[in-house]
Amino acid sequence: MRNYLFSMLSFKFLILACFLFVTTVYGQEEDNNSPNFIIIFADDLGYGDLGVFGNPSIKTPHLDKMSFEGQKWTNFYAAASVCTPSRAGLLTGRLPVRSGMASSTNRVLFPNSKNGLPASEITLAEQLKEAGYTTAAIGKWHLGHKEEFLPTNHGFDTYFGIPYSNDMDRLQGEAYKGYWKRPNDSIKTEHFNVPLLRGTEIVERPANQNNITKRYSDEAVTFINQQDETPFFLYLAHNLPHIPLFASEEFKGKSKRGLYGDVVEEIDNGVGKILDALKEKGLAENTIVVFTSDNGPWLPFKNNGGTAGLLRAGKGTTWEGGMRVPTLFWGPSILAPAVISDLGSTLDLFTTFCTMANTNIPTDRIIDGVDLTDVLLEGKPSPRKSVFYYRGSELFAARVGDYKAHFISQGAYGELGERVQHDLPLLFNVAFDASERFDIADAHPEILKEITELVFKHKSKLVRGKDQLVERE
Amino acid sequence: MRNYLFSMLSFKFLILACFLFVTTVYGQEEDNNSPNFIIIFADDLGYGDLGVFGNPSIKTPHLDKMSFEGQKWTNFYAAASVCTPSRAGLLTGRLPVRSGMASSTNRVLFPNSKNGLPASEITLAEQLKEAGYTTAAIGKWHLGHKEEFLPTNHGFDTYFGIPYSNDMDRLQGEAYKGYWKRPNDSIKTEHFNVPLLRGTEIVERPANQNNITKRYSDEAVTFINQQDETPFFLYLAHNLPHIPLFASEEFKGKSKRGLYGDVVEEIDNGVGKILDALKEKGLAENTIVVFTSDNGPWLPFKNNGGTAGLLRAGKGTTWEGGMRVPTLFWGPSILAPAVISDLGSTLDLFTTFCTMANTNIPTDRIIDGVDLTDVLLEGKPSPRKSVFYYRGSELFAARVGDYKAHFISQGAYGELGERVQHDLPLLFNVAFDASERFDIADAHPEILKEITELVFKHKSKLVRGKDQLVERE
Repeated sequence: MRNYLFSMLSFKFLILACFLFVTTVYGQEEDNNSPNFIIIFADDLGYGDLGVFGNPSIKTPHLDKMSFEGQKWTNFYAAASVCTPSRAGLLTGRLPVRSGMASSTNRVLFPNSKNGLPASEITLAEQLKEAGYTTAAIGKWHLGHKEEFLPTNHGFDTYFGIPYSNDMDRLQGEAYKGYWKRPNDSIKTEHFNVPLLRGTEIVERPANQNNITKRYSDEAVTFINQQDETPFFLYLAHNLPHIPLFASEEFKGKSKRGLYGDVVEEIDNGVGKILDALKEKGLAENTIVVFTSDNGPWLPFKNNGGTAGLLRAGKGTTWEGGMRVPTLFWGPSILAPAVISDLGSTLDLFTTFCTMANTNIPTDRIIDGVDLTDVLLEGKPSPRKSVFYYRGSELFAARVGDYKAHFISQGAYGELGERVQHDLPLLFNVAFDASERFDIADAHPEILKEITELVFKHKSKLVRGKDQLVERE
Repeated sequence: MRNYLFSMLSFKFLILACFLFVTTVYGQEEDNNSPNFIIIFADDLGYGDLGVFGNPSIKTPHLDKMSFEGQKWTNFYAAASVCTPSRAGLLTGRLPVRSGMASSTNRVLFPNSKNGLPASEITLAEQLKEAGYTTAAIGKWHLGHKEEFLPTNHGFDTYFGIPYSNDMDRLQGEAYKGYWKRPNDSIKTEHFNVPLLRGTEIVERPANQNNITKRYSDEAVTFINQQDETPFFLYLAHNLPHIPLFASEEFKGKSKRGLYGDVVEEIDNGVGKILDALKEKGLAENTIVVFTSDNGPWLPFKNNGGTAGLLRAGKGTTWEGGMRVPTLFWGPSILAPAVISDLGSTLDLFTTFCTMANTNIPTDRIIDGVDLTDVLLEGKPSPRKSVFYYRGSELFAARVGDYKAHFISQGAYGELGERVQHDLPLLFNVAFDASERFDIADAHPEILKEITELVFKHKSKLVRGKDQLVERE
């Protein structure tokens, strides 16, 4: 069965290789065969929140099917453990600390932040646009809400969405106080004065979040139906299941996991609509869809947050639960169906998609992403050998192969979690011990030495971008 | 898609219904169309130990495929949280406390135990044999090692396996001392003088456990290949991944999860061989295969035990991690592919398979199993509405619908775990809060009342069987 699969896949690889060759020869203008890319990015979705990642109560039939037909990545990491830096990493292929989007002062951007992703950064959208792609951003941005920082000024032809987190612009007073400790039905979308933008114009404020997930998915379907021969890149970043939680009437009360489950099931439903649209439009054979999350579950919010399954801790931390995210790749006639336990990162999407689209990787700056093409197309071993875990602008931990060293550790924001500097770093084999329960530093000084040297080398060469999160108005 | 599925399934249901009718009319002698049943029963496999149940390091491609083609049950329970009572429950469809196979003195049967499953109990094998089935037991028995209690005296035509746990008959002395705290490669199969039986004869002692998993799976394939028109029931109960852990050379070092992962991957490989044999023999269309576990992971053994994923605690406890087990049903042209989050229990296999085989359910005793036929064939709601959680012969907790009340709670055997009697029982919504983190007893007195009344009713009617585990020689 596996052999059959692989022979099938080598064949598909040949096909793709052929048009990559053709497009190389005839240049980008004639390149209409490059694969389309869709990134579906959930917000604060935990490692254990999908059926196929072990959730017993949340039903995600479309994502489960996506995993059986494509690739399920079990050791795939977000670029950071909170929103803004994670998104900067995904779109630039660079550790957020390089672009100044990871800060020692502020975790993320706020409605009164002065800056955003610098114009000097090159986004995946800009790269693909240059390669002739139609590009669209839908949903949460959180890389600067001022016009100059919005998606349409970072390589996206169009934008529809809320420019930052859905719990921002909070209306003060009784209606709002301690909302996340109150029953969900007492939390109204009107309590959050977040704007909904089309392009750079506010079209709705406060954005009606009750059906925002549905509207984002429908917008994606509309975009897909508008496509012609030109290859496209769609970046769909849901604002949910980040708190406050909202589901449309069709999904409210549907899940046994409560409102959080309703929200995830509505996102899953949207994924189904998107895959169906691709099939009906005849684009499924030449489109790669990625589903992943920006960071782990926001655990201090108890059952209004998700679960990291067997992984330790969640959002905001550099434990596995904070940065290892449930990730699926789908592309019926392109990908080698498999479960991939090798390393991958959202940083790699930049390099991988640029490679597949046959556009050049910038050489004037350090790109941290690696090319996963051969893993996706042929199930070959991943070229990614290490992961750096930053909290803000500070490196807390690093993974090399199966081993992860914690130099500093700390609990989640808003939880008891003192910062601990480890004189002897903690060492875990996170393939063997995914829950990070058994420190083996004493038994493996040589591995600790290897990781420490890699980190030293990384730090000594690191050029930090000017902190873009610090200035407020 | 779902609708299509269901119309397909109603059709399959019709077919099955037809031959159930035919067999009813023409009686059991002519019954050659009843489905074959295979139960594959792992030992101490945790809820989070399979790929499709969220394990990031253990690769189980065959079980994953089984779940996509069949039914994945996310709220399925073992009859008890340790070996002997769990197995008694599965084979009799009765709570082990009724047959005396759950005791207040001993957790399980030992090599010096005097008794076993009483002859007065009716096993699923006896029921199916009466309906004209060929029956075979392979692997761990643990319902009495004396001849009168062995499988061949409880309805099985044949038996091949180790009659109790693979860590029993321990050779004393240095070689053995504290073996589970020592490196796995220092633990030899010779340290455990367990017998391997064929029928009632010892054919090997100590049983070579290095390849026991492979030998059990191969024995199952041989049995399948010997079958003719007569329907059959195969009970394959692996001795592993119960400690001590052994894998054959082909699998040793294969998994990133260490020896525990190697063992689970070898079991998965065996499942693949069994499904292939069914297909090659043309039996897949009329065979139902169940894969499940006898209880949760044995956590005090650290990484030599498995993981319960997001569930709380493990083997020996009445927390979800102790009794909720990863369960798959497979039957390509019979079952309605689905993820089932309704309640099910190993107790139900007795009633369900007797119903499908069109043989009568005993009326002279209480049977605790319910008929899951309509859930399996049509994806209808499960008729099981409650679960009783016994520790030994004592009821610790009960679940009704989504709610579970703990009257007594305690940690795993061999772990710090004081017994706590709860004056006000703990109450959890285990659909919403599978990790049993948030006690909601104060908020829902009416639900607590309902569960308490059910338990009172259950206890007041309960007739306890004579303790079969207490007497030793």
